[in-house]
Amino acid sequence: MQRWSVPLGPVAMFSASNFPFAFSVLGGDTASALAAGCPVVVKAHTGHLQLSNRVFGLIQQVLAAQGLPAGLVGLVQGGGRDVGVRLIRHPAIAAGAFTGSTQGGAALAAEAAARPRPIPFYGELGSVNPIVALPAKLATDGAALATNLAGSITLGCGQFCTNPGVILLIDEVQPDIDAKAVNDAFVAQLTEALTAQQPHAMLTTVMRGAFEAGVAQWAQAGADMLLQETAAAGQPPRPVLAQVSALEFIAKAALREEVFGPSSLIVRAASLSQALQVLQAVGGSLTVTLWGVEQDSDKSRALVRGAMAIAGRVLFAGVPTGVAVTAAQQHGGPWPSSTRPESTSVGDAALARFLRPVCLQDAPAWLTERAGRRV
Amino acid sequence: MQRWSVPLGPVAMFSASNFPFAFSVLGGDTASALAAGCPVVVKAHTGHLQLSNRVFGLIQQVLAAQGLPAGLVGLVQGGGRDVGVRLIRHPAIAAGAFTGSTQGGAALAAEAAARPRPIPFYGELGSVNPIVALPAKLATDGAALATNLAGSITLGCGQFCTNPGVILLIDEVQPDIDAKAVNDAFVAQLTEALTAQQPHAMLTTVMRGAFEAGVAQWAQAGADMLLQETAAAGQPPRPVLAQVSALEFIAKAALREEVFGPSSLIVRAASLSQALQVLQAVGGSLTVTLWGVEQDSDKSRALVRGAMAIAGRVLFAGVPTGVAVTAAQQHGGPWPSSTRPESTSVGDAALARFLRPVCLQDAPAWLTERAGRRV
Repeated sequence: MQRWSVPLGPVAMFSASNFPFAFSVLGGDTASALAAGCPVVVKAHTGHLQLSNRVFGLIQQVLAAQGLPAGLVGLVQGGGRDVGVRLIRHPAIAAGAFTGSTQGGAALAAEAAARPRPIPFYGELGSVNPIVALPAKLATDGAALATNLAGSITLGCGQFCTNPGVILLIDEVQPDIDAKAVNDAFVAQLTEALTAQQPHAMLTTVMRGAFEAGVAQWAQAGADMLLQETAAAGQPPRPVLAQVSALEFIAKAALREEVFGPSSLIVRAASLSQALQVLQAVGGSLTVTLWGVEQDSDKSRALVRGAMAIAGRVLFAGVPTGVAVTAAQQHGGPWPSSTRPESTSVGDAALARFLRPVCLQDAPAWLTERAGRRV
Repeated sequence: MQRWSVPLGPVAMFSASNFPFAFSVLGGDTASALAAGCPVVVKAHTGHLQLSNRVFGLIQQVLAAQGLPAGLVGLVQGGGRDVGVRLIRHPAIAAGAFTGSTQGGAALAAEAAARPRPIPFYGELGSVNPIVALPAKLATDGAALATNLAGSITLGCGQFCTNPGVILLIDEVQPDIDAKAVNDAFVAQLTEALTAQQPHAMLTTVMRGAFEAGVAQWAQAGADMLLQETAAAGQPPRPVLAQVSALEFIAKAALREEVFGPSSLIVRAASLSQALQVLQAVGGSLTVTLWGVEQDSDKSRALVRGAMAIAGRVLFAGVPTGVAVTAAQQHGGPWPSSTRPESTSVGDAALARFLRPVCLQDAPAWLTERAGRRV
């Protein structure tokens, strides 16, 4: 017996708003699907329609020059929800790939599951990417970490799916360290470092509006707005920093939603066990970053377990923005960060999303000896 | 960076009716989930409740003797649809595994997708397992193949998910062979071989009733009932053989549904292209068997392509009943044969259903050097 991988069939690919090249018409999902042997129908993102058309024009030229079928890559456009729904419902579509909001992704995933013939739907959705910073680490490296973190929060004006949206600080009393004082000092350092940042403009007015609505929702939910400056008319948004207690964060779903833009929410936990409950309340995230677990200890193990339970990628240094395209990469985590935590949309394993195995039993030599395993 | 596999979490396992040992309380799905590190909650099948209780009692003894948590394996029972639905909806459940009917599996898959936190649902559903028998093969080996096939159709009284439910014969005119005469002779041989079979009793009266209803549905849809004997009162069912044209099979959905029991439907195609349309109409099947494609030809390639497009396993000799537990095995195919054609419920890859990857970036040595990769 042999086990081959065969393409699933035509893939409906929903472009992301925030990566007009890397996750749009000719981005990672299209590359994965084509590499797996699947034709692709792209749903262009309304945030960059002209660019999508230009890229699609290039594709058509290349297909013609290479003598490939013109239908290998298709493009559909349209503003309303209807275009995407009709695409994912089309009988010839065999899989969906999506990068975008939890709401939009959940709606399309439900459509994919409700078809007469259900199909896999790979959605990379919203993620708050918690950073857990232990006081002992902040006591020695706080200033440098605050600067790095401010750069990560405002990178690309915060429009990264791995943007650190939650900073979890643990105020637990310890014999050798005044945790609360250290954490307060770090918050002050971070506020200062963020104030110095000059984010560029957001990609679209829709995204800018959603960012401002998200920040307003934090304030409305009772968050302490540590940094909230009004940008001058026509200027890019200013960085935002807010703070809540762990109990508030756990109690209010509104505080746990991703706010897409140059902002972060500090969550103050009174104990390790409360910090673990905060991670549990997040539920699913593309990444969790742990600063200060370099030494093996019960606390380190508990935090690693808590992080691995909800994340697709766990970092032990640095910041989560920036996603290496490698064999080990995992960009996808438990709900609500993705619809398929067992899959990744970045890295070598991304193309496996569009393959399925076929077992050949007692196959003749003419078939099993074929180069490329194509019939 | 390193890529680890971590358990998804507690698995809801829905026992099959037809394998009270191999796909029930301690069957393949439970073994896969436990091997992946996931606790299991078994939904016992109502067809063998006492056996399920006995096996569960053994599990509890073993867990106690080994000092393992009693909750590692749980058991729920109950006849109505409600018990299964409540189990798959439970917030602590992280995945579902199911072997059974398309209708039941589709309903539970929809529940899994509609949860506030959707979870993967691995359903192994109904399958008609077409056998495509080419005239040149039947002209030389027809008698032996008819005997083998009759044994496969009645094996375990037809209660195998890989039971060959469709036999596709191609009556196309060929220069060197009278295809129609050869096919007619094979049908006569098969009818005779089936008549000689003495199937044992079916596992439950519910399954017996469903079998008789399925056969009645064939007759009602206009199939030519070649072999349909009434069993004596209290006796096991007699084998059933029916015949339809390819056009009828393609036109009537009722003819394409799995009839679970010692029965098979012969489908007569007028041409190769009509035979390929029959495979397409089947849509998805655990297996397709091709008899007579030993030589490389356009016809062989077209049939292999058609078979691989709809099947998880393609056989080139023998019969589909009997599923080896090996690394190459694939027991799962496109809808309606399973809900996740990229997964298998038999073979080494079956445990991968209950794992998800986690990428560790800049992880400390105390963690990456841990034996067993458990924290």
